[in-house]
Amino acid sequence: MSIRIGILGYGNLGRGIECAVKQASDMELKAVFTRRDPSTVKILSDNVKVYHVDEAVKMKDEIDVMILCGGSATDLPVQTPEYVKYFNVVDSFDTHAKIPEHFGNVDKSAKESGKIGIISAGWDPGMFSLNRLYAGAVLPNGKDYTFWGKGVSQGHSDAIRRIDGVVDAKQYTIPIDTALEAVRSGSNPELSTREKHLRECFVVAAEGADKAKIEQEIKTMPNYFADYDTIVHFISLEELKANHSGIPHGGFVIRSGNTGWENEHSHIIEYSLKLDSNPEFTASVIVAYARAAYKLSKEGACGCKTVFDIAPAYLTEMSHEEIIKNLL
Amino acid sequence: MSIRIGILGYGNLGRGIECAVKQASDMELKAVFTRRDPSTVKILSDNVKVYHVDEAVKMKDEIDVMILCGGSATDLPVQTPEYVKYFNVVDSFDTHAKIPEHFGNVDKSAKESGKIGIISAGWDPGMFSLNRLYAGAVLPNGKDYTFWGKGVSQGHSDAIRRIDGVVDAKQYTIPIDTALEAVRSGSNPELSTREKHLRECFVVAAEGADKAKIEQEIKTMPNYFADYDTIVHFISLEELKANHSGIPHGGFVIRSGNTGWENEHSHIIEYSLKLDSNPEFTASVIVAYARAAYKLSKEGACGCKTVFDIAPAYLTEMSHEEIIKNLL
Repeated sequence: MSIRIGILGYGNLGRGIECAVKQASDMELKAVFTRRDPSTVKILSDNVKVYHVDEAVKMKDEIDVMILCGGSATDLPVQTPEYVKYFNVVDSFDTHAKIPEHFGNVDKSAKESGKIGIISAGWDPGMFSLNRLYAGAVLPNGKDYTFWGKGVSQGHSDAIRRIDGVVDAKQYTIPIDTALEAVRSGSNPELSTREKHLRECFVVAAEGADKAKIEQEIKTMPNYFADYDTIVHFISLEELKANHSGIPHGGFVIRSGNTGWENEHSHIIEYSLKLDSNPEFTASVIVAYARAAYKLSKEGACGCKTVFDIAPAYLTEMSHEEIIKNLL
Repeated sequence: MSIRIGILGYGNLGRGIECAVKQASDMELKAVFTRRDPSTVKILSDNVKVYHVDEAVKMKDEIDVMILCGGSATDLPVQTPEYVKYFNVVDSFDTHAKIPEHFGNVDKSAKESGKIGIISAGWDPGMFSLNRLYAGAVLPNGKDYTFWGKGVSQGHSDAIRRIDGVVDAKQYTIPIDTALEAVRSGSNPELSTREKHLRECFVVAAEGADKAKIEQEIKTMPNYFADYDTIVHFISLEELKANHSGIPHGGFVIRSGNTGWENEHSHIIEYSLKLDSNPEFTASVIVAYARAAYKLSKEGACGCKTVFDIAPAYLTEMSHEEIIKNLL
């Protein structure tokens, strides 16, 4: 029998989940839930119905894992503890500083309902977190570095769009090669924010807008740009659409550490991602963890779980015999 | 209270374990066991005693995890199922084709004794296996590639040393850059053995030996060299000792896969290791899994486990709160 998946929230991430479920031979998409008028939401699958989110709880016995595709700012802090009362759920909550609080809320609710709630699945948090943990456990005497990019930062692009005279914008976060090379050399450098990443912005200005003023406003924007070297290009709307409509991303987690009686040997562990589509890759991670949520729930487990708490074997469609034989 | 570690077998790997335990603030090395005369075995730690292996079982209540540092060919197939009768054990059994059989033997024995037996911990099998599993679960529609090196292959170096007229030798396995680049491009190439790796040999010939014959014998040796492009250098014993006495290794696990409704987006996941000391890094992985063996045993678990069966949180000294807060 297939694992019956529900999607709650149908934006880029929800669509990515739909695509990832299609690739999983042990899953079927059961329903999509939206806060919009369901008749206005067109999904990719022919044979799957879109419901209003208010219908979700009624379908609790028809869905094995509900995937929550809301935002971390306001949706998930409410939705995950709420929906785990009725469903096994997976979210991609990514406000790093608030994860402990979110974990506590989901854990309490999930333990009361006897369901599994997996939080912060994706690539950072998610696969990058796993790599920080594994690498640190193996090389305790070391230091780790996370670099992001080259990729589009949605938050930074939005911040530029809010500036007066800006029609549209795309911002790329770019790791600086010399910093990456310094880390790979094993020299354990101390790197400032400015030394690690560069920010490159492609901006469409309104006709007659003061471009110099816009550029100045971007470069000095606190939190977003002031601590970085920032490059601003003004381009036409056509060029933005033609060359900057994708949502690529990626990055690197590198740990450099030493072993030996006198720490005489140096080692580098490097994990990197190069992603054509940030939301589709995030969705692919979430779907693997949805499989884990299902298996864990079948075993009678409950409570909040993270990528740290789940044995890798739970993620795959393959049997234990197959992974021992083919992957170990 | 510290986790009390025993080391059974004191070669390069055993010494690596000793170094890794020194870095673990939650562990202490309790004893080293050897098949040699213990009085002839000098270890790095001042305050730790070396015993004959026949004394091991008597000390079963003084050791929480026994780390088995024997070879995969003849030692571990016997030792792991035997010692797991008395101890939680970890080994680095690396004969890939025989892992299923070894798993079965250790599992049976461990379930009878109520102990934990972790097998095939290291980097391949081990960290590379983990990365094959995670990447495949996340990108099921894809293909993965494992490259080894640049590093010293002990087995291939030994094979050269067995040739008539060879005094000593070191063999490096080298991944071929063009193959790596083809994989990273996402083109999912089909690569032959010869296209993936190169073998470079540094050979010390006996005085008057027929070097052309030695070179020919190396290059045509079935299984070891015949399927590869092999470079042979003849050097002096002094040069071999000065420049080729290290045991570096490393490699790459790369998965290239597609997502999207029509598989229109491509992604690359890459994991790589660059290791100054192969045995010390292997030992560092084993020691992290020894911690897991201890924690799992404390929870009442038993049986044979692999890296696939163990949640990452078990590997670290940090508390669950700390990893959620600092690494997720």
